[in-house]
Amino acid sequence: MSTPGLFIAFEGGEGAGKSTQAAALESALLADGYHAALVREPGSTKLGDYLRSYLVAKKPIVPLAELLLFEASRAQLVTERIRPLLDDGAIVIADRFAGSTVAYQGHGRGMDLEQIRWLNDAATGGLYPDMTILLDIDPLVGLGRLMADAADRFEDEEIAFHKAVRQGFHEQEDKSGTWCLVEGNHSIDDVAAAVWARVNPLLPEQNVVKLACAEMG
Amino acid sequence: MSTPGLFIAFEGGEGAGKSTQAAALESALLADGYHAALVREPGSTKLGDYLRSYLVAKKPIVPLAELLLFEASRAQLVTERIRPLLDDGAIVIADRFAGSTVAYQGHGRGMDLEQIRWLNDAATGGLYPDMTILLDIDPLVGLGRLMADAADRFEDEEIAFHKAVRQGFHEQEDKSGTWCLVEGNHSIDDVAAAVWARVNPLLPEQNVVKLACAEMG
Repeated sequence: MSTPGLFIAFEGGEGAGKSTQAAALESALLADGYHAALVREPGSTKLGDYLRSYLVAKKPIVPLAELLLFEASRAQLVTERIRPLLDDGAIVIADRFAGSTVAYQGHGRGMDLEQIRWLNDAATGGLYPDMTILLDIDPLVGLGRLMADAADRFEDEEIAFHKAVRQGFHEQEDKSGTWCLVEGNHSIDDVAAAVWARVNPLLPEQNVVKLACAEMG
Repeated sequence: MSTPGLFIAFEGGEGAGKSTQAAALESALLADGYHAALVREPGSTKLGDYLRSYLVAKKPIVPLAELLLFEASRAQLVTERIRPLLDDGAIVIADRFAGSTVAYQGHGRGMDLEQIRWLNDAATGGLYPDMTILLDIDPLVGLGRLMADAADRFEDEEIAFHKAVRQGFHEQEDKSGTWCLVEGNHSIDDVAAAVWARVNPLLPEQNVVKLACAEMG
């Protein structure tokens, strides 16, 4: 079902700049007078924040239960916030969405991709972003932004995990006309400008909402 | 995959006596020298208890997210406790299991039964009880056990919900040879005796583990 708003998601690995760029985009849109709202996963609802607390505390959880918590948080977020905002004509900016589950749980942890797609479809009710901006970055560079000595601190196995996650994002970008790759390995302003160049043509005033990334040349 | 242990679940509506009977059965088995363990849903793991706290506090949650939380709790419980206990030869007694999700979310809330079955299969990894004891009781009688003036306190709509849940349990009992109906509207000791008559033939010593309820005459 089509909605009058616009739904933009940021995806990418650790340290790619998703939260920074999502906030910058929200500010730019608000400054231009758009009704914009930022949400993050898991979170942005009472349930999502409650589940996030458990997940970040690294309390015991098996991979399947973790996957189901992400999907529960997503179902709540879509129903309680994203759909109503879109129905109200807002531009919703999501800091991670279903693509992260495919990349992390699927490609990273090796869980069944069909099972993940089924759960994503169920949790979202089929609502996917009009545009997904993949902030792409080499895992070692991204992790290095979060901690200076990342290359020394992470085990080979962990680096391999993040490389598999990156590959999972690339595959989704390859297959979907609504995903746009933006190189994350530049200054905040340069990345923000690249993001804006992608988002600007989609803004309602210009009347080309839901133009696929691939069609933009 | 078959396991050496024995897995018995109690199902039924509010006030049917599940917790009382599950505890009584555990005590009887322990007294007879069996390795028995009692679990309840949602709960019996750190994650399950954490999710239970949110659910019982009646904080905001949409039906689909609620369903996914129950399944996450179940996935954790099966992997962390039930499977290892069964592999160790224990008799696991569950106070509610997947059948409650079919009855409450499916028949009660009207959610898609196929979706629920898919999620139950995923969360359990296909591990279902060897025997499910359905403690059957009229909802008004069961609710009346929990509060004296139940008939006055509950709205018609709520009573209808609990009747639909009961119907959901009956349908599962009708369709499955591993479900046994035990009338819950009797004294604790009488119900315990009826439960024991069902469970006793399954106990390992008697070498007839996994005899279906329907075959017992």
